[in-house]
Amino acid sequence: MPEAAPAPAVPATIGDSEFDRDTHVTRRAPGVYDIDLSAGWTIINAVNGGYLLAVLGRALGDALPHPDPFTLSAHYLTASRPGPAVVRTETVRAGRGLSTGQASLFQYDDEGDEVERIRVLASYGDLDTLPDDVRTSAKPPAMPPAEHCFGPEDGPAAVEGSSAITDRLKLKLDPATLGWALGQPSGRGEMRAWFGLADGRDADPLSLLLAVDALPPTAFELGLKGWVPTVELTAHVRCRPAPGPLRVSVTTRNLAGGFLEEDAEVWDSADRLVAQSRQLARVRLG
Amino acid sequence: MPEAAPAPAVPATIGDSEFDRDTHVTRRAPGVYDIDLSAGWTIINAVNGGYLLAVLGRALGDALPHPDPFTLSAHYLTASRPGPAVVRTETVRAGRGLSTGQASLFQYDDEGDEVERIRVLASYGDLDTLPDDVRTSAKPPAMPPAEHCFGPEDGPAAVEGSSAITDRLKLKLDPATLGWALGQPSGRGEMRAWFGLADGRDADPLSLLLAVDALPPTAFELGLKGWVPTVELTAHVRCRPAPGPLRVSVTTRNLAGGFLEEDAEVWDSADRLVAQSRQLARVRLG
Repeated sequence: MPEAAPAPAVPATIGDSEFDRDTHVTRRAPGVYDIDLSAGWTIINAVNGGYLLAVLGRALGDALPHPDPFTLSAHYLTASRPGPAVVRTETVRAGRGLSTGQASLFQYDDEGDEVERIRVLASYGDLDTLPDDVRTSAKPPAMPPAEHCFGPEDGPAAVEGSSAITDRLKLKLDPATLGWALGQPSGRGEMRAWFGLADGRDADPLSLLLAVDALPPTAFELGLKGWVPTVELTAHVRCRPAPGPLRVSVTTRNLAGGFLEEDAEVWDSADRLVAQSRQLARVRLG
Repeated sequence: MPEAAPAPAVPATIGDSEFDRDTHVTRRAPGVYDIDLSAGWTIINAVNGGYLLAVLGRALGDALPHPDPFTLSAHYLTASRPGPAVVRTETVRAGRGLSTGQASLFQYDDEGDEVERIRVLASYGDLDTLPDDVRTSAKPPAMPPAEHCFGPEDGPAAVEGSSAITDRLKLKLDPATLGWALGQPSGRGEMRAWFGLADGRDADPLSLLLAVDALPPTAFELGLKGWVPTVELTAHVRCRPAPGPLRVSVTTRNLAGGFLEEDAEVWDSADRLVAQSRQLARVRLG
């Protein structure tokens, strides 16, 4: 494994960071955006699903009258590859407090035909207009401080293939959910980590879409080794995250019939539950 | 409140019941379906969102090459009314094990223009082809037997307006989540009930789409009284339900910023977790 990049002397800022550059979409026509999918967010042989979600979320944030994703549902159709892609958006409804849009990401096959990779339905609003009321019963995940957690740079390579994304994340896994890396999966469908961007950029609603799908699959702790492709992922962004590291907790309750769900919660440094997500993924049962 | 309908001497069967007749869609053209939305599934002044989901789910089950909804995400745009509606579907991708489709439900405004009510993205498969592996860590909800639970027919009317849907459901609420009906909400975001169709029809994947959105809002137990309109609801159907009553458990962890999530689990009589759902809904904070 490569050494972890040293922490930058000056942290990158929101709007001027690797993540911002790699999710940058260029408007070609009203509602149509060009993007060059970066190879920097790949793992094994796949482009990370959360990175793709952030790309689609960014295009919709430009196309719709409201800036922030409140709820975004993505169905993953075919495997994306690094390189050029087109995002086509549609404004479904523009309301006063919320607007709803649709977006699809397309790439080209070897014959030059467009192939749809992902389709998304989303409702957008403005997080800064929400009232301050918080009556949550949820508690932040119990996990050790980051300095007692472990990243890919602390151990042997756990996966074969690309690990590009690990260089761009500051991911520190709770040792209680790291049994799989030592050949001793806990049998519990849990994965927890401290999450940040390696260049020090703070979190915003778009990077929360990355955070909900950035941890190793809970299936690893359930003793499964294969890849776990996402069929559908829905994320709710509930609050603009405070500066500082995030905590991400992912749980699986129901592994059955060759599918499992992964529920993610993202907590910010102010102990606010800033995002929730659930995905349905396929597993290959041995 | 009207008396609960007496249990039918001969239970209705799947395919020949009120629910089946009221979700019946007529193919007008390839992928386009007419439906007459029944007033029988209204509550207060709204058509129940789960009933609408089942209508869209049925149209997609006809249009797509696979029969069963595996994951279905619905964004609710405008309020549906009883009466004629059109469902337009699109096959997004037809794969071997899964196919993905999109559907929209439209009605007409006073000028005769089409207004979109709901848009759905869904991935379908065939539940009967799934392997039998079950490694769930989830446990069925702890709740008293149905004869110790309470339905609308057991108490004073809790809501004003239409209660038509209550006549079509056999809904028996866990007394531990009924404080709101007595003016003493528990403060916990929990709602649990035994669920069946009043005419005795057993559950199938389509009626699970009804079940995930059929209980009173968890917001009532959080001390809120107003309506809680759904912005988006995603349901996963994980298993064909066994005959017999269902148990539905709904929880809310995060009420904040004028929104809350409702997570539903549906368990069948064989103790299988047959469906999961999450919705994002708006609340009116007093």
